Amino acid sequence: MVKYVRFESSPYPAFGILDGSTIHELGSPQAAAPISRTHRLADVKLLAPCAPSKILAVGLNYKSHLGSRPAPTHPEIFYKPPSCVQGHDGSIVLPRDAANVHYEGELVLVIGRQARNVSEEEAAAAIFGVTCGNDVSERDWQHGDKKDLQWWRAKGADTFAPLGPAIAAGLDYSDLLLTTRLNGETVQQQRTSDLLFPPARIVSYVSRWVTLEPGDVIFTGTPGSTRKMNPGDTVEVEIEGIGVLRNKVVAA
Amino acid sequence: MVKYVRFESSPYPAFGILDGSTIHELGSPQAAAPISRTHRLADVKLLAPCAPSKILAVGLNYKSHLGSRPAPTHPEIFYKPPSCVQGHDGSIVLPRDAANVHYEGELVLVIGRQARNVSEEEAAAAIFGVTCGNDVSERDWQHGDKKDLQWWRAKGADTFAPLGPAIAAGLDYSDLLLTTRLNGETVQQQRTSDLLFPPARIVSYVSRWVTLEPGDVIFTGTPGSTRKMNPGDTVEVEIEGIGVLRNKVVAA
Repeated sequence: MVKYVRFESSPYPAFGILDGSTIHELGSPQAAAPISRTHRLADVKLLAPCAPSKILAVGLNYKSHLGSRPAPTHPEIFYKPPSCVQGHDGSIVLPRDAANVHYEGELVLVIGRQARNVSEEEAAAAIFGVTCGNDVSERDWQHGDKKDLQWWRAKGADTFAPLGPAIAAGLDYSDLLLTTRLNGETVQQQRTSDLLFPPARIVSYVSRWVTLEPGDVIFTGTPGSTRKMNPGDTVEVEIEGIGVLRNKVVAA
Repeated sequence: MVKYVRFESSPYPAFGILDGSTIHELGSPQAAAPISRTHRLADVKLLAPCAPSKILAVGLNYKSHLGSRPAPTHPEIFYKPPSCVQGHDGSIVLPRDAANVHYEGELVLVIGRQARNVSEEEAAAAIFGVTCGNDVSERDWQHGDKKDLQWWRAKGADTFAPLGPAIAAGLDYSDLLLTTRLNGETVQQQRTSDLLFPPARIVSYVSRWVTLEPGDVIFTGTPGSTRKMNPGDTVEVEIEGIGVLRNKVVAA
């Protein structure tokens, strides 16, 4: 298993392989071989581990999150724009007029090769690795009286897609424990084996209509129930084998 | 007024300024000055005139398209993924299992500078230019019994966002005639002065939550009614001062 990170560097962000508290910098996004430069993890600012051309997300993909809603018969997909990506330790900014912003801890798939109309077997091979994600959601824009026609800002406001801290490649992600903590308290906990539509099925399904590109990410859905976040809160999404994605919540 | 195009070139797509039937190639996307190379328009394969990091679209933005629906009180936004961009003369591919794919001729805004929480005045300055777009839509996935939770494939299947043929910069786009033709027959016709939310208001509104980046595009909405397209059809979106975006419809 290899953990890939992306971090602030001049003039462009750099990629690296994380080895404990050391990062071995990679020559370029295309070059898998480390160059001789290493950094202490503590000395760099981690960015989201990839720069997706698009972000997809699955709704209603854990039985525990359905409530009174029926289980979907196929993956229910929506988009988040690349502009809402945030890195580990970056802030989740509550929009000025947002009253009800929730966390959603999720396993996130990172695509490694182009996938167009692929079988489930090909889809599995197209998944480069997995990372932790927080599918931040404004509930009043998503549901109820005041909801928008579509979820564009409910799911897509700036900073609403924290990703990280690393992409774990070569990790069996079929049965990992996912835990979300709000100010240290466990508020979501479920195994990825409980996903209604598992990763390869999601990727295969999406690829029937929408071509996936290397670096694209898919949020696989959140378990259980969620709660409103407030300025000053700290939210952590931990997935065993990947690490902890931690973000502070701030007012705009 | 200057018309910008993008066309196939090796190893990367090239940008150019269109002057009648001649293209003056630009040195790079960043360099506004033409280099000495020119091409005959007929000799190049035009691509979508920009490569957006995200595509937004406005629903219900002409009174003539509302039907029995009430006029929205603010712009209703949704996303189309960059993977669905198609160029002038490229094919609109009907997905295998799609039964009801419609054209939607639209004025499309191209963003020229980053816009975050901007006023309407700043928004107007952030619009680089305008182009023609076809917001291709699968109605059975969008509305009715079989609709998806969100419009991800209804609006986002591959080839569902033809754009072009050129970006017109320096054109007053407040009152242009928009015409859509299906196999030569005019099927939509309206002036952009009839937009319920005009361009600067849309950009300012979106930017309150979602940061717009240079090259991002916004479909401003379609007028009147639309009709199903069939394999073999040719659909044209013409906007005065910009040109004609023409695409052939093919089966997958």
